[in-house]
Amino acid sequence: MEDPLKLGIAGLGTVGIGVVKIVQRHAGVLATRAGRPVEIVAVSARTKGADRGADLSTYDWADDPVDLARREDIDVFVELIGGEEGPAKAAVEAALDAGKDVVTANKALLAIHGQALAERAEAHGACLRFEAAVAGGIPVIKALTEGLAGNEITRVMGVMNGTCNYILTRMQDAGLDYQTVFAEAEALGYLEADPTLDVGGIDAGHKLALLASIAFGTKVDFAAMRIEGIERVSIEDIRQAADMGYRVKLLGVAQMTGRGLESRMSPCLVPMASPLGQLEAATNMVVLEGDSVGQIFLRGAGAGEGPTASAVMGDVMDIARGLRMSTFGQPAASLTAARPAGSSAPAPYYLRMSLVDKPGALAKIATVLGEAGISIDRMRQYGHTDPSAPVLIVTHRASRTALDEAITAMGATGVLASEPVALRIEEV
Amino acid sequence: MEDPLKLGIAGLGTVGIGVVKIVQRHAGVLATRAGRPVEIVAVSARTKGADRGADLSTYDWADDPVDLARREDIDVFVELIGGEEGPAKAAVEAALDAGKDVVTANKALLAIHGQALAERAEAHGACLRFEAAVAGGIPVIKALTEGLAGNEITRVMGVMNGTCNYILTRMQDAGLDYQTVFAEAEALGYLEADPTLDVGGIDAGHKLALLASIAFGTKVDFAAMRIEGIERVSIEDIRQAADMGYRVKLLGVAQMTGRGLESRMSPCLVPMASPLGQLEAATNMVVLEGDSVGQIFLRGAGAGEGPTASAVMGDVMDIARGLRMSTFGQPAASLTAARPAGSSAPAPYYLRMSLVDKPGALAKIATVLGEAGISIDRMRQYGHTDPSAPVLIVTHRASRTALDEAITAMGATGVLASEPVALRIEEV
Repeated sequence: MEDPLKLGIAGLGTVGIGVVKIVQRHAGVLATRAGRPVEIVAVSARTKGADRGADLSTYDWADDPVDLARREDIDVFVELIGGEEGPAKAAVEAALDAGKDVVTANKALLAIHGQALAERAEAHGACLRFEAAVAGGIPVIKALTEGLAGNEITRVMGVMNGTCNYILTRMQDAGLDYQTVFAEAEALGYLEADPTLDVGGIDAGHKLALLASIAFGTKVDFAAMRIEGIERVSIEDIRQAADMGYRVKLLGVAQMTGRGLESRMSPCLVPMASPLGQLEAATNMVVLEGDSVGQIFLRGAGAGEGPTASAVMGDVMDIARGLRMSTFGQPAASLTAARPAGSSAPAPYYLRMSLVDKPGALAKIATVLGEAGISIDRMRQYGHTDPSAPVLIVTHRASRTALDEAITAMGATGVLASEPVALRIEEV
Repeated sequence: MEDPLKLGIAGLGTVGIGVVKIVQRHAGVLATRAGRPVEIVAVSARTKGADRGADLSTYDWADDPVDLARREDIDVFVELIGGEEGPAKAAVEAALDAGKDVVTANKALLAIHGQALAERAEAHGACLRFEAAVAGGIPVIKALTEGLAGNEITRVMGVMNGTCNYILTRMQDAGLDYQTVFAEAEALGYLEADPTLDVGGIDAGHKLALLASIAFGTKVDFAAMRIEGIERVSIEDIRQAADMGYRVKLLGVAQMTGRGLESRMSPCLVPMASPLGQLEAATNMVVLEGDSVGQIFLRGAGAGEGPTASAVMGDVMDIARGLRMSTFGQPAASLTAARPAGSSAPAPYYLRMSLVDKPGALAKIATVLGEAGISIDRMRQYGHTDPSAPVLIVTHRASRTALDEAITAMGATGVLASEPVALRIEEV
């Protein structure tokens, strides 16, 4: 058997402790699978001495993760500190500069500095791996980078923030409004310290940016992504979408089009009976589309100690086995700068509005849509006691630009009793 | 850029031609991703000169796949001939003996001779890879072997024969009986030349045997698997199972228990609302359960030119990139001989029977179950015009042995109007 693979772990939160537990519990089988033992040499965290539910007494302690990253006696630096700047970034850079392989769960760090870090890793002959950064325990980076390596990837989609999916399915199941369920989720500790990272779509956006880079061989470009969170999703829309056969999901979509790379994270409607539509609670799903493979659906827990630690260990085991991959699946210098698509690909849209209750109101709306070249697939006007009439429209495929122009023109007709809500229906 | 990786492809059916097309269409991106070109040097098939829908004129032709396998100028032998003996086996052995890496889609060959071939590969420093042998385009071997390498795998389940799932969902949707849908499937060309491979559960059993070996670090042992096909699934059971909230699936399950390795392929009931229950038509799904990761669901096309060629190319690209794995995820000598579990783990069961229409009949059946220690979760007796009364029972968790004893005892009561049907309800 070969020499042990020696780990230094920085960050001893739930994921870090999860990794420690796996290394301790499965030492035998890990060594059999890798052909060499996997050992922890040293650990680091902000506060020493706290009881973390695992025996750390046989490991060296480092107060500074940068010192840990540079230790002569480690092969792999496992970064589980988090955050796109500060100690996480400094320690990862130090490890790569010292030629150490790095395994991280840090989506923000990779989404913002991924290109520079990938170049740095290559310059020093080091691996930089981040399976745990995207969709928790689901081995989606590996599936995309390696399993589907023979495909031209046509589209990547995903529900990748468990908290948002929890909020949306709870709204739907209990008939509660966003504010109420948000408060519940906060009380349950489901939200990040800065909740905007979750409900604002930023965390999921980071993940999508990483997948897009691998899928299309482009430099990771989080700034070019169009991001909209779930804060404005109303219980009315969830109800009415269900009535039309849809579910509302915070859906990330990346696809290469003739107009450039389209990459967006936004609330979308998906068919209730589709795998994405059936995804409940905090579960994650990623859909990979390739020209040969068709659609592959990967579903599992997107967060939590066990699933995230499993993904970290997957990367560690690859390194232990000598399976050394480029950070984004190809040499960093070969990644191209994608031109962001100015507009999104045409899609059907869901429109909800209230009309003043007078003859010809609906006809005016239908006329405006017709003049914008948008044809109507289905329309429903609901019975009402208010002076205004709720109306739902599902359009055939239309461009967002044409739709926005039509919505502006609707305002000029004088028949709108409220601002229309428009949600994209993603064809899955 | 490094030297090209040179392929010899034996077998030019749909999958072989699919691989040729990918190599031709994506030469640029394959080279970028692998850091080296991927080239086809020579091909082989039973008949030369047929129009196969791809230009093969620049490749050398070999009449004998064994000659192709031994060619000095190939790095990887791609075996797409099929069959567990004959030329496929001879050529794979020849390639490994010559130190060539081998990529194959041949589930039967691996399920029967996997251990010997893995040892042979190792003895000659060659890789033997078979992603395409299991669940078509879904990268499940990679997910299990590499992505979940930090887990103790607790259970592997799957719907892995598209034809069987097509037949079962078609029976269910159209209300047709097995014989009618089987004849339809045959007319549509969905069945293997020997249909028993599909409907008898053998093809799916081969795939499960391979997954079990990787999951539990055991020598592949197809002979120890309990296999039951879908030939005896009746439209009545599909209807009544639906009435109780279940779907009937040909489900493979492998799990390590205190009694040994349990590994079976059989028609089972799964909840209608579960991901497995919602799997329609020829789609495949594999569920991987690990102690850290929980449940991962992988869904996609299980067969066809594109998906299967995608899986072959995934393996080829791994080799091109220098990612070299043991055949079953660990050294062949470390794989253990699993003790087959004598009996299956307890589970709820679905029981369908007809009772003679006389007072106390149902009470006698309930008494027999009670005496066998089997408690009833739900029971339904249906209205009837026949002299016999249809009865459905869903039990709480019971052992198959106790159930079989109870079924024998039911026969002695004199109230059965037909032999009871018992189907396992898999807890997913």
